[in-house]
Amino acid sequence: MLQRIDINADIGEGFGNYVMPNDEGIMKLITSANIACGYHAGDPLTMRKTVDLAKKYGVSVGAHPGLPDLMGFGRRVMEISPDEIYHYIIYQVGALKAFAEIDGLRLHHVKPHGAFFRSTKENEEQARAMVKAILDIDRELILYCPGPVEVYHPTLGKVADKMGLRILQEFYADLHYSSSGQLVSPKVQKLEATSEGIAKRVLRFLEEGKVTSIEGAEVAFDVGTICIHGDNPLTLDRLQSMRHVLRDAGITVKLEP
Amino acid sequence: MLQRIDINADIGEGFGNYVMPNDEGIMKLITSANIACGYHAGDPLTMRKTVDLAKKYGVSVGAHPGLPDLMGFGRRVMEISPDEIYHYIIYQVGALKAFAEIDGLRLHHVKPHGAFFRSTKENEEQARAMVKAILDIDRELILYCPGPVEVYHPTLGKVADKMGLRILQEFYADLHYSSSGQLVSPKVQKLEATSEGIAKRVLRFLEEGKVTSIEGAEVAFDVGTICIHGDNPLTLDRLQSMRHVLRDAGITVKLEP
Amino acid sequence: MLQRIDINADIGEGFGNYVMPNDEGIMKLITSANIACGYHAGDPLTMRKTVDLAKKYGVSVGAHPGLPDLMGFGRRVMEISPDEIYHYIIYQVGALKAFAEIDGLRLHHVKPHGAFFRSTKENEEQARAMVKAILDIDRELILYCPGPVEVYHPTLGKVADKMGLRILQEFYADLHYSSSGQLVSPKVQKLEATSEGIAKRVLRFLEEGKVTSIEGAEVAFDVGTICIHGDNPLTLDRLQSMRHVLRDAGITVKLEP
Amino acid sequence: MLQRIDINADIGEGFGNYVMPNDEGIMKLITSANIACGYHAGDPLTMRKTVDLAKKYGVSVGAHPGLPDLMGFGRRVMEISPDEIYHYIIYQVGALKAFAEIDGLRLHHVKPHGAFFRSTKENEEQARAMVKAILDIDRELILYCPGPVEVYHPTLGKVADKMGLRILQEFYADLHYSSSGQLVSPKVQKLEATSEGIAKRVLRFLEEGKVTSIEGAEVAFDVGTICIHGDNPLTLDRLQSMRHVLRDAGITVKLEP
Repeated sequence: MLQRIDINADIGEGFGNYVMPNDEGIMKLITSANIACGYHAGDPLTMRKTVDLAKKYGVSVGAHPGLPDLMGFGRRVMEISPDEIYHYIIYQVGALKAFAEIDGLRLHHVKPHGAFFRSTKENEEQARAMVKAILDIDRELILYCPGPVEVYHPTLGKVADKMGLRILQEFYADLHYSSSGQLVSPKVQKLEATSEGIAKRVLRFLEEGKVTSIEGAEVAFDVGTICIHGDNPLTLDRLQSMRHVLRDAGITVKLEP
Repeated sequence: MLQRIDINADIGEGFGNYVMPNDEGIMKLITSANIACGYHAGDPLTMRKTVDLAKKYGVSVGAHPGLPDLMGFGRRVMEISPDEIYHYIIYQVGALKAFAEIDGLRLHHVKPHGAFFRSTKENEEQARAMVKAILDIDRELILYCPGPVEVYHPTLGKVADKMGLRILQEFYADLHYSSSGQLVSPKVQKLEATSEGIAKRVLRFLEEGKVTSIEGAEVAFDVGTICIHGDNPLTLDRLQSMRHVLRDAGITVKLEP
Repeated sequence: MLQRIDINADIGEGFGNYVMPNDEGIMKLITSANIACGYHAGDPLTMRKTVDLAKKYGVSVGAHPGLPDLMGFGRRVMEISPDEIYHYIIYQVGALKAFAEIDGLRLHHVKPHGAFFRSTKENEEQARAMVKAILDIDRELILYCPGPVEVYHPTLGKVADKMGLRILQEFYADLHYSSSGQLVSPKVQKLEATSEGIAKRVLRFLEEGKVTSIEGAEVAFDVGTICIHGDNPLTLDRLQSMRHVLRDAGITVKLEP
Repeated sequence: MLQRIDINADIGEGFGNYVMPNDEGIMKLITSANIACGYHAGDPLTMRKTVDLAKKYGVSVGAHPGLPDLMGFGRRVMEISPDEIYHYIIYQVGALKAFAEIDGLRLHHVKPHGAFFRSTKENEEQARAMVKAILDIDRELILYCPGPVEVYHPTLGKVADKMGLRILQEFYADLHYSSSGQLVSPKVQKLEATSEGIAKRVLRFLEEGKVTSIEGAEVAFDVGTICIHGDNPLTLDRLQSMRHVLRDAGITVKLEP
């Protein structure tokens, strides 16, 4: 059983006058932050404030690059070329890296925003562009990716292995899984559970390495980090429950070493 | 008299489908490139192509950050706060730095786009924000600024001196000066001259350190670099004349050491 | 004394994923809505939802065009030309008009967003461009403008009179006035008052036509409409108080005929 | 055989400082203009200039709405919902309509930009949203669509018929057809032909109603309008040849009545 676990959330997803109210509260309870970089959300001032918050609470700074679609919050799959993928990552992660460096921090990981991931799902050349961009920024960066990678993004998984990019598989605390291992959109079936129920679901996954899918089968994979959505009003309560339940079970919430 | 001189131009100012046709031709004839960073112009693919061109022709890579005003090409003065200035520079210059680094290059200088400069003219706090942002990216960066600095941007000049940011003063090859040392907008009075006339005007400035203003007085300052506009159809011809005239006069066009 | 009064608010100022939570609540309590048109805020879906809400609650639909500055929420004065002013209004108000028309409504008024107004303050040519654009969309449109117009925007006031654009002067319920009749920014001095205090201040202005400035003098003008800020968490409570106090005083909250 | 034919082109696809140099030349030679509306290209000043040019040369004004993707020139297919399609059309076409109206013109047709069309290809609900938006702006508007509609966009064709939206099928002067009736991307196989060759290909299509595909089969459909790309340096020369060849054959280039 795991003795320690990382918890990550997407954060800093405001823009200009639009502020995400829970960012500081969430930052106190997670260990890795995926910070928006200006394409689907985030602007320079928000990026800086969010990096500052991460520093204040000892949270590792990750980049959360997205598609250039502010109007759609980067949630709409777009046909983009490998060249576009590569350079959109360099631009966004490069900008965030500058903010991290002025705070004396080193970027820890990259987690592409949902539809950016999905826009590159089927295509090896696109996956290579994504992996190469991350490695070209810093060869020590880690890719956060929903698990099981061989289900969610098999092409990317193979390419990352071959090219030497480390992947950490995410377990989603607040989403259902299908028996095939896919995440179930909350529009299709929402995870109805109390904060404690969600915390126990996480604990079971950490203890047993598996979760029961909506069809009743067990889905198992090696978890590297727990992901929780940052834009839900219940997130703070869920995070607090999770930290209590994990602490009582003897699991430290801490960045993987 | 100067034995060598740097020539710079704003470049990479296309966006997406909009391509600046002369960029490669100009790059062959200058020694420093001010590359747009995505706010007033430039997108990730254009930035990369432009950095690649600079590398190919041995041109030093500078950042040309602008106001977030693509529709106005960053040419409209905006009321921006010191905080906005600081973080807009970190974001844009940080992104360009990432492109330079994947090409194995180090950023050499920063030249804010016209209205970005003018938006910060009167205010010491704004000037400090601009200087601090540049130094925080890399303490060795040089600020390119129209000369005479004490006329064009006196507050910035003093602040840069005090904070340790080196300034290189630009002589504008293709614009008139007023007797007070201000650049004259081409809308007010265009510099009507043949390419050879422009080249000789530059040579005289290098030899004598002064230029005749539209009112007939002499304007003098220590020139660090010659600036020529990249978006003029005559630019290539003017640059060629300039290089011939300077070579014949025994002046090497070369980055200051 | 006035028997009826119009209350307006800026509304529909979300963008994409960023939703303004109080819009429907506010719409129930006002009589004129100034709807963002996509430049400083607002996107097509938000515009439609907001026009639908206005229709549902019998609120008159006005356009709230802004500067093309989403990152700054249109709050930063920009140097714009008369041509830009004219065409930015046609574009934005034209788009909103289309949404109004598919709901069977006619646009009632135009209220430029703050910094758009302030960007045109000193210049007659700019004021003419703004007035002409509004008239060219529909000669019956009314311009909402902070009162006293001869203080806030004297050039515009004269130009509008000459060109035949009707102006309705706004009394700001939730801002202080200076003795010269200028609105005092809440950054300089916030209006500290209970909701009832604000309501009584409005009532006094309606009854006596004047308000006490922060310096103690009286500021008077012919009020055409009361404006209240839509983005304040206290707005709903203030609007409710205002409606109670006005009703008790025998004043109907109703669009001017 | 047709006695008269309409020729259309996409036009006004500059943005801000980026100007399309051939727009006026093209406008002199076509009869219908598809004018960009600000999402994939076009800004208020460019839209106005382009509408003015159409008026000057007696060209019918059509709207050319696109996806909100300026960086990709609207050329990247996006997953968009029926609601987004509907409201993006209302917004863009509504704005262009305002510009037409201040010039005393009525909008004549709508032609969605390429990837906007392709984003809605498979889905009846999306097609209905597109048709309804156009009809809701003005029931007399015509949809320009690449022919044969039953190949290029069969769902849309059926929905338009049912809902009462008139479609005019376009013959592409400068692209190859496959035997199935699909347009062949110039990246796959460019149409290599002299301007006169292209003109004769158009004439044959008008005379015989069919074109030879790259595989050698004949593709036939009822042509309503000839489309030529506006962003090709050869366009002016091709248009001139086309007009000569058609005139010599006794065909008037004129908007359908």
